[in-house]
Amino acid sequence: MVDKKKKILVTGAAGFIGSTLVDKLLERQHCVIGVDDFSTGQEYFLTKARMCAKFSLERVNILEQSKLVSCMRGVDFVFHLAANADVRYGASHPKKDFEQNARGTLNVLEAMRVCGVSHIAFASTGSIYGEASIFPTPENHPFPVQTSLYGASKLAAEGLIQAYAEAFGIRAHIFRFVSILGERYTHGHIIDFYRQLIRDGSVLRVLGNGGQKKSYLYVQDCIDAILIGIERAQEKVNIFNLGTDEFCRVNDSIKWICEELEVKPRIEYGGGERGWIGDSPFIFLDCSGIRRLEWRPKLTIRDAVIRTVAFLKMNEKRIVRGDSCG
Amino acid sequence: MVDKKKKILVTGAAGFIGSTLVDKLLERQHCVIGVDDFSTGQEYFLTKARMCAKFSLERVNILEQSKLVSCMRGVDFVFHLAANADVRYGASHPKKDFEQNARGTLNVLEAMRVCGVSHIAFASTGSIYGEASIFPTPENHPFPVQTSLYGASKLAAEGLIQAYAEAFGIRAHIFRFVSILGERYTHGHIIDFYRQLIRDGSVLRVLGNGGQKKSYLYVQDCIDAILIGIERAQEKVNIFNLGTDEFCRVNDSIKWICEELEVKPRIEYGGGERGWIGDSPFIFLDCSGIRRLEWRPKLTIRDAVIRTVAFLKMNEKRIVRGDSCG
Repeated sequence: MVDKKKKILVTGAAGFIGSTLVDKLLERQHCVIGVDDFSTGQEYFLTKARMCAKFSLERVNILEQSKLVSCMRGVDFVFHLAANADVRYGASHPKKDFEQNARGTLNVLEAMRVCGVSHIAFASTGSIYGEASIFPTPENHPFPVQTSLYGASKLAAEGLIQAYAEAFGIRAHIFRFVSILGERYTHGHIIDFYRQLIRDGSVLRVLGNGGQKKSYLYVQDCIDAILIGIERAQEKVNIFNLGTDEFCRVNDSIKWICEELEVKPRIEYGGGERGWIGDSPFIFLDCSGIRRLEWRPKLTIRDAVIRTVAFLKMNEKRIVRGDSCG
Repeated sequence: MVDKKKKILVTGAAGFIGSTLVDKLLERQHCVIGVDDFSTGQEYFLTKARMCAKFSLERVNILEQSKLVSCMRGVDFVFHLAANADVRYGASHPKKDFEQNARGTLNVLEAMRVCGVSHIAFASTGSIYGEASIFPTPENHPFPVQTSLYGASKLAAEGLIQAYAEAFGIRAHIFRFVSILGERYTHGHIIDFYRQLIRDGSVLRVLGNGGQKKSYLYVQDCIDAILIGIERAQEKVNIFNLGTDEFCRVNDSIKWICEELEVKPRIEYGGGERGWIGDSPFIFLDCSGIRRLEWRPKLTIRDAVIRTVAFLKMNEKRIVRGDSCG
């Protein structure tokens, strides 16, 4: 797919991962249609893309079925990344994850079916394993019980994609991510800590006990893995975990951030093993499947955290102090 | 739950399994609110229930959120059985399973949350295992890939229930059924064969090669298992396969039906291992979980088929020749 010049539609094109993918696809000379409703996407993430004649932008929410079908005509391949990615606050708006992530995915699949588009790549999540019983967690982990509305909505989306693959001959590449870091990162632990520390470097409030284990992957490594998976895995439905072969503790990431910011705060822990309702105390994925296709991450978790802090420093006014980012 | 007299809401109350459950709950002196939109439910399945003062009927589609909330007030327990159960034709109306089964379940959960109802039992399906790799298939089978829109919609519903259990303290009993047979049975293989044979006993057209393995469970055994599971399994989320410890071939069921109808048709096979797109060639569930709670099915598959044929004979005019049943 990646070597031939194709017409590719990317949902969530103005998001952190979506916009990074768009840039990479344009580098490879594909025609790219970016779809985003800018509910959390950022205009300026697409600054470079919009200077390219092969890029077009459609301001469409994937829940708008007829508009989505209009965008889909003549498309060869869909990267479906649009989602409500706010895993932490599912319980305060229980229908939002489901609408955007599950029904949104159904709309994408329906638009593909109507327009005869036969290949989808989907951004899923390691949250789908709920409270895993095996670490590192393989793709064929025992049938999990969901612990977050976000995970449940992504599970629903995966199931729909798989059923469409069977019923309508669509090929699918499903990628279950750990948390992604790097340039254009806009929400999660690292930015929360960063925001607190630039406001007041003397104290840092941390949910949980700081011992929570977390896995991260650098965004460029993530994009490389997606493109390698699509090129090299030829089943009808292909499912890959994406992460590094290590994890860190929340306390490790705090240490690295503080070193970069040259602050030594007093740390106030909220206590308990979990940061929030539905938070998994441990996500650590077995990525031997994608590694067998000769993908290797270039950055360690520590390097990815440091790159992210460098990006936040460069964009402090826009990303860190602003309130327009997700 | 079952010994104390409670106010119980049953969705899909006019369906095959729903109406049988309603009768059993009324026998046990519970107050029962039956919810059904009568899209496939049958008025006369509730004839006995409607003679009972403890029963009330609400003509509501579970997609009508505000009406559902009105029904839910003061309820102690929800049996959620309403579903589009037409597993075979998912590909001809791809959104229907999702709307009725996944979004319908979300509506039920939301109504429960709003009204403070803290316990749900859910009718899921063995189709959720897609093409299982282990037989008999245990509840903790490796994370399956979906092969039908019906299975995908039930997977989505299960995930939502599990996430609500975690986020809002709801308890859940999820039952993954094989195909259910018995009195009030209205759609599936047995009725399809029956209809053909009473029209013309000399020929029977069969999808696939007749060698497909199928598992069935008698409806009263199914209801017993549900009530035992709820009484005896005390986790926050409890998941049980429901079936017998045997399976049959489509050809076996044909033989039993023909014996009951005293016909000897020529059999014309459509060929291939599958009956329809997304059909699983083999569903056979490991039911040791529910058996550990000392449930035992009373009828074999053969007995259940024969009972079903007897019911169809008794209701030939209404069920078999009519076109009002799902």
